[in-house]
Amino acid sequence: MIDSNQIRDAADRIRQYLYRTPCEISPVISHQLGCNVFLKFENQQVSGSFKARGAFNKILTYGKEERDDRFFVAASTGNHAAAFCSALITLNLTGRVYLPENVGDSKLEYIKSTGVPLELFGKNSLHTEVYCRKIAEENEYTLVHPYNDPQIIAGQGTVGLEFIEQHPDLDVLIVPVGGGGLIAGIAAFLKILHPRIRLIGCQPVQSPEMVRSIEQGHIIEEDISKPTLSDGTAGGMEPSSITFEICQQYVDEWALIEEDEIAFEIINMIQTHQMIIEGAAALPLAYLRKNASRYQQKNVGIVLTGKRISFQKLNDLLHTAGS
Amino acid sequence: MIDSNQIRDAADRIRQYLYRTPCEISPVISHQLGCNVFLKFENQQVSGSFKARGAFNKILTYGKEERDDRFFVAASTGNHAAAFCSALITLNLTGRVYLPENVGDSKLEYIKSTGVPLELFGKNSLHTEVYCRKIAEENEYTLVHPYNDPQIIAGQGTVGLEFIEQHPDLDVLIVPVGGGGLIAGIAAFLKILHPRIRLIGCQPVQSPEMVRSIEQGHIIEEDISKPTLSDGTAGGMEPSSITFEICQQYVDEWALIEEDEIAFEIINMIQTHQMIIEGAAALPLAYLRKNASRYQQKNVGIVLTGKRISFQKLNDLLHTAGS
Repeated sequence: MIDSNQIRDAADRIRQYLYRTPCEISPVISHQLGCNVFLKFENQQVSGSFKARGAFNKILTYGKEERDDRFFVAASTGNHAAAFCSALITLNLTGRVYLPENVGDSKLEYIKSTGVPLELFGKNSLHTEVYCRKIAEENEYTLVHPYNDPQIIAGQGTVGLEFIEQHPDLDVLIVPVGGGGLIAGIAAFLKILHPRIRLIGCQPVQSPEMVRSIEQGHIIEEDISKPTLSDGTAGGMEPSSITFEICQQYVDEWALIEEDEIAFEIINMIQTHQMIIEGAAALPLAYLRKNASRYQQKNVGIVLTGKRISFQKLNDLLHTAGS
Repeated sequence: MIDSNQIRDAADRIRQYLYRTPCEISPVISHQLGCNVFLKFENQQVSGSFKARGAFNKILTYGKEERDDRFFVAASTGNHAAAFCSALITLNLTGRVYLPENVGDSKLEYIKSTGVPLELFGKNSLHTEVYCRKIAEENEYTLVHPYNDPQIIAGQGTVGLEFIEQHPDLDVLIVPVGGGGLIAGIAAFLKILHPRIRLIGCQPVQSPEMVRSIEQGHIIEEDISKPTLSDGTAGGMEPSSITFEICQQYVDEWALIEEDEIAFEIINMIQTHQMIIEGAAALPLAYLRKNASRYQQKNVGIVLTGKRISFQKLNDLLHTAGS
């Protein structure tokens, strides 16, 4: 479906625009948990998350002339919108981003500051996505999808390629999962070339669409998503998503994480690393804390996927932790 | 005193161990202030601050055999201790770090997690520093000073070298100042090779030792340091510090920043970049916000020096901002 050469090609394409993000052992968390914990800081990636890898790769698959002729569109409220806008301004391309009407102030301020044209439509992100796809089809615009696209998956897979280059002796890699683009890309590289590395996918209990789909053997269609601190992974997949089969085939273990566990890891990262992570990035840390006894002295990799969290949520978490 | 070749040599020495940190335009802050604001993220440097540049450079000036024979010591509560410990464990060297008895829990947890031997001594950091210097002299240990050392200054100066490589069209560079190692190193590079770039030093009103010393034409010896959010720049200089003359000669403008201005910028970075900065890193942002009308459309560089801030302080700031 995706082969490792597509991921190598993606790495070559995005190299001059994006960071090879640091991948560091965390002395404090390693000490807390009794294993060697390596953190890959995609929260420091261009645009604030790994999503830039997919968006840049997708757009760069079109040659310079072809992409100058196209009009790109994307729908998202969070990391994918920021990644898409960053790609458009960096590559000096035309396009538009679609946001739901209830998008938060700070996200809106960020998008506006990039100068990329935006349109508010719909009461939630699914409405906005459906509308964006319709507009794209009617106008022959080029849709940059957040996960259901081989070139997006290949771009996200470069996280796995870099991790292995930076720490070849990894025993296990733990990854947050929403639509599944990131873990599918990582799996397509890692489980072919380094099958001994255990790959673990995490979702919040509040929005476990991929886990339930894997259990049932098909992509579930009912809406089971409840509010979660891990908003970056919430909301499930399109019925046709190519990420599902890759996950089915390659992910070794699935885990569900509670809200209080997510909150704990967000606070712990601030206390130990003075670093803000999004709720999704807390999922693998929470998995590891619960299962630390299984990984003593092992080399454990964790992808810190991004940094976006609402100021109000962060404030509430800190206030609760500090009191 | 320090020439630009020493800074180039330092850059060569530290390259394989430290990051060439990102230096990015901030769309949101540029939009807020009407100039092109470039942020250099030394808060993402190894050990959490630019201090790693000086510590690694100083230690690497000794050849492999010579440094394996030496015993290194340093005194600090904050960024310099973390940088020193990071250098010792990375280079596999022996040494000890001295901390005041009242060092905070999270700093102590970090130092302990690195495995570097530590000794608690003294009621404040000056006591600890004096004690550390005495121990070093009595035992022929090698002292790694936080700023008063040409090789430390040359190491910190690599921030300026990289900034110019990353953004050659800079009009002004704004830097926090404590002992003056960072701005002296930057000045020694920038003001010789690119004298048209305006260099501005910032201190908190609560601990303005360098500014007062410049005004009086000599290093002041009385203790005028009051508590400040910018604890990384607090406490003044040794009477003999070589940083003073370099600052006298090359810094174009000095600014003093109030505590509420520091607090505002810490919160603003969380809201706009989901990023924690130390109080010292807020100083240049606050200077620019007050003086934005002078820099419209200019390319303004800011060094975000580090990320260490106590959890309690951060919590208090957020609570005040959120209520």
